[in-house]
This record gives sequence, C-alpha cells and structure tokens, in this order.
Amino acid sequence: MDTSAHPLDQAIHLVALEEDRYTGHITPAYANMVGPFGGVIAATMLNAVLLHPRRMGEPVALTINFAGPITDEPFRISARPARSNRSTQHWIIELTQHGEIAVTATAMLAVRRDSWSAQELTVPDVPPAEQITPSSAPVPIAWVKCYQMRFVDGLLTMNSADTSDSSLSRLWVRDEPPRPLDFLSLTALADVFFPRIFLRRQAPCPAGTVSMTIYYHTDSQELAAYGQQPVLACARANQMHKGFADQTAELWGADGKLLVTSQQLVYYKA
Amino acid sequence: MDTSAHPLDQAIHLVALEEDRYTGHITPAYANMVGPFGGVIAATMLNAVLLHPRRMGEPVALTINFAGPITDEPFRISARPARSNRSTQHWIIELTQHGEIAVTATAMLAVRRDSWSAQELTVPDVPPAEQITPSSAPVPIAWVKCYQMRFVDGLLTMNSADTSDSSLSRLWVRDEPPRPLDFLSLTALADVFFPRIFLRRQAPCPAGTVSMTIYYHTDSQELAAYGQQPVLACARANQMHKGFADQTAELWGADGKLLVTSQQLVYYKA
Repeated sequence: MDTSAHPLDQAIHLVALEEDRYTGHITPAYANMVGPFGGVIAATMLNAVLLHPRRMGEPVALTINFAGPITDEPFRISARPARSNRSTQHWIIELTQHGEIAVTATAMLAVRRDSWSAQELTVPDVPPAEQITPSSAPVPIAWVKCYQMRFVDGLLTMNSADTSDSSLSRLWVRDEPPRPLDFLSLTALADVFFPRIFLRRQAPCPAGTVSMTIYYHTDSQELAAYGQQPVLACARANQMHKGFADQTAELWGADGKLLVTSQQLVYYKA
Repeated sequence: MDTSAHPLDQAIHLVALEEDRYTGHITPAYANMVGPFGGVIAATMLNAVLLHPRRMGEPVALTINFAGPITDEPFRISARPARSNRSTQHWIIELTQHGEIAVTATAMLAVRRDSWSAQELTVPDVPPAEQITPSSAPVPIAWVKCYQMRFVDGLLTMNSADTSDSSLSRLWVRDEPPRPLDFLSLTALADVFFPRIFLRRQAPCPAGTVSMTIYYHTDSQELAAYGQQPVLACARANQMHKGFADQTAELWGADGKLLVTSQQLVYYKA
C-alpha cells in the first residue's frame, strides 16, 4: 500500500490475486461503531470492478447489500462479469471474511453517449459551502473525521429538544483531506448520512444500512472538472416501519448538477 | 401449470429442479415490446426465493438488473442464500437463457417485528379510484391489458401537444382480472410505469429498464388486508443524462400507507 496516498485510497486498496479475486482490508481511519464505514465498503466493492482487466465502461448503477458484519482484518472479494454487451456490462461481487459472505453487490457499467437530457429535480436553494461553518458530529467515530461537513439543516445533535417530524439533512461535504472527486469517493459520499432515525429521535439506537443502491448521472470527464469541490448531499426517510427505514438521497455538484441519486434501507431497533 | 390460476401466477410459475435451480417461461399475456414485461420478470426472480426450502422471512429489499434480453422461451433460474443470519437472509439470483446470464438480482428477507414507526412522506391528495375512469395505453402491448389503470395525472398519450416539464404520473392500478395483493403482485406493480422519457417527450424512443430496486415497507399479514384493492402508484424522473434516466416511485395502499418505495435506472436513446 502507498502510505502517501489519500486515506480513502489506502482504505479501499486491493491486491489482485487469481482471476476475479482480490484481497484487502479497510484501514482504521474509516472505522464505524461496528466495523468499517459502509460507504467505504461500497467503494471497495466498486474498486474491484474498476481494477478488473475485463472492465468496460463506467459505473451507472451499484447495489450493495451489507449481509453480515466485517472487521478491519483482511477479506477476499470476488468480482465477475455476469454479462457483457456492446456498451453495457453487469457484475456480481461478493466479499468474504472468516469463511462467510459478508457483502454482496451488483454493478452495472456503461459506455455513455451524449443524448437528449433533462434535469427534472430542482437543486435546493441553499447558501454556498464557504458561508457555512464546518461542524463535527456528536458521536465518537473515526470515519466522520475523514469528511468535512457543513450542515445547512438536519444536524445530528443527540439533544432530545431537537427531535422533529422531518429527517431531512442537507450538507456540503468533501473528503478530509481534500481529494479529487471520482466514482470511488462519490460512492462513499452517498452513504455519508447518519441513520435518519437518529435524527428523528435525536437519540441513539441500534441501526445500520442493510442495502444501498446508487445511480451515477455523470461520467469521469465531468467528475474530473469538480476537482476537490464539495458536493451538496441531501437525504430523508420516507417510511420507518417494523424495524426497517428507507432513505432517499441526492448528491449535487456545486454547479447545480444532480450527480447521484440513491436509496438505502436501514435496519433499526427502537 | 394450473391454467385456472390467475394470469400473473401462470406467468411467474416455476418448476423446481435440482438444489437452488428452477425453470420457467413467461406467458405471452405479459409480453412487452421486446420480451416480457420487466415487472413480471422481477416477480419471477423473487418467486424463486419465496419457493426455496431454505427461505426465512419476508422480502424487504430486491434489486433486479436486466442484463440482456429474454424471450418467452424457457429459462433457468439459480437462487442461492448467500448469508443467513438470525432474522435476515441475503440471496443472489441469476436467470440464464440460451446459455447466457440475462438477469441478475439480489434479495434481502427479514423476520419483521413491531417497532417505533413513522411515515414521513405524505400521501398524495388525489380522488379515490372509483371516481376515475380506467384508461388504456396508446401502445399495442400485451402486458398493459393485465392491469386496470386509472390515471390521476401523467397519462401517456403519444400526442406531441402533451409534452411537459414534469414526468410525474399518479394512477390507481390493480391486476386485471383482480388478484389479492401480495409480494409478487406488488413487485410487478413497482414496474408498471412507462419510461418517463416517453411522458416528457410524448414520443417513442428506444428505452428500457436496466436496474430496479424495490423496498417493501409491509408484511404479508398487512398486505392480505388489502385484498383486491388498487394501489396508488406514483413515479417521476429526477435526472435524464447521457443515455440513462432514473425513476423514483411509490406504491400506496388505499388507506394511505406507503407500502413500497422504488427506484430504477432506464436506458434510452434520444
């Protein structure tokens, strides 16, 4: 591993083994309450595809299922192309640790072409990043320090006086230290939100993402133009019922382009 | 196959082969422009899990990737439990036809328990189903006749005078003939929307769902209480860019409960 690399690149670093197989381990910098930050696990699963010699095109869709806990010890990833078409490719990815499958994923890649376009969702009217003071989360977890977060609204305080009927959070966020935006950092950023149930209740409870889907509405050329700029990250829950809550999220470029739409399902016990 | 069964149950019917393997074929009643209706393919993938002797719990999340075209000829499905925990289970499902993988999927099942609950998204204020006249789609495809659709707004007319800046559709919809609501019919209903780009342009173009994720915010007991009632189905696109458009969708019970949230990615050429 290149210890001069950005902490994110160290965390998602993989070593290729035999065909379709990789090994890696997630660095303590991205530790969560239990195991590593899910966003970095997702980026690591995608990284196995991006490094693969048979890869064709760029990510358009990624689904990650967090099937069991993982630790910061080494794991194996298998990434196999299930189907390759002329301009699209579908992957099945599995992470195994201690002899058990802990994460499953599917990814779709495509060679994108210019087309008729329409951005239908309106970018939120919020102050620019530089007008907002960065804040730190009221939870002692490592990965949060890997991001600079500037909250427009929906700050987690864990103060019961701040409970509300809305789980909406909107924040400007970038890697800390800064890192150029690409599909890998964008993938981790799509999971940067605390469980919405924490925000509703401003109180902790057992909770964790069990499945996450990310759609990428951009390509590497467009992403490169953002450099180290922050993205505007927005998330809210729609339904919390019988132990599972959903979350709808968007990542916006500072220029108002909708770069990512995502949804996730979160287990909770409350 | 039981030819007295509901057409949906005939379409998604599977025969168990050796361990983890099934065979089936989708009936012409659910034919789409090219191959069968994606919603019924999704329901068939889920059916392989629901029929599996090692199944534990009920669906909470399903992701389907339409990797290649399928025909109405026989296919094979493999469904294997990747990870079984105390109260959750993760599956990897693959459909193969003519020697190639054509559909991949992951599913998560769970034993749900009562919990703190909150429905945050507000049910749309629309007239009840019985006040709206059913309409037929202006496209000569078979599967549309398997649903009764009553449009509140966002009707596809293929009349260029009806183009708009909104791709929102809201309709009351149920199986035709009526069928009790369950996870299988709900899965197919989550894909009941025409590509949003058709609605924006009120003109045809090559388009098709390439990936779809469904979260189920209900259980079989709650679903049974709906019987043959229609659901309120709502969908809109957020971003259409470089050949791929997303779609966010909800299915609501007639009692105002949010039963399903879903997103999908649609390929288009325009």
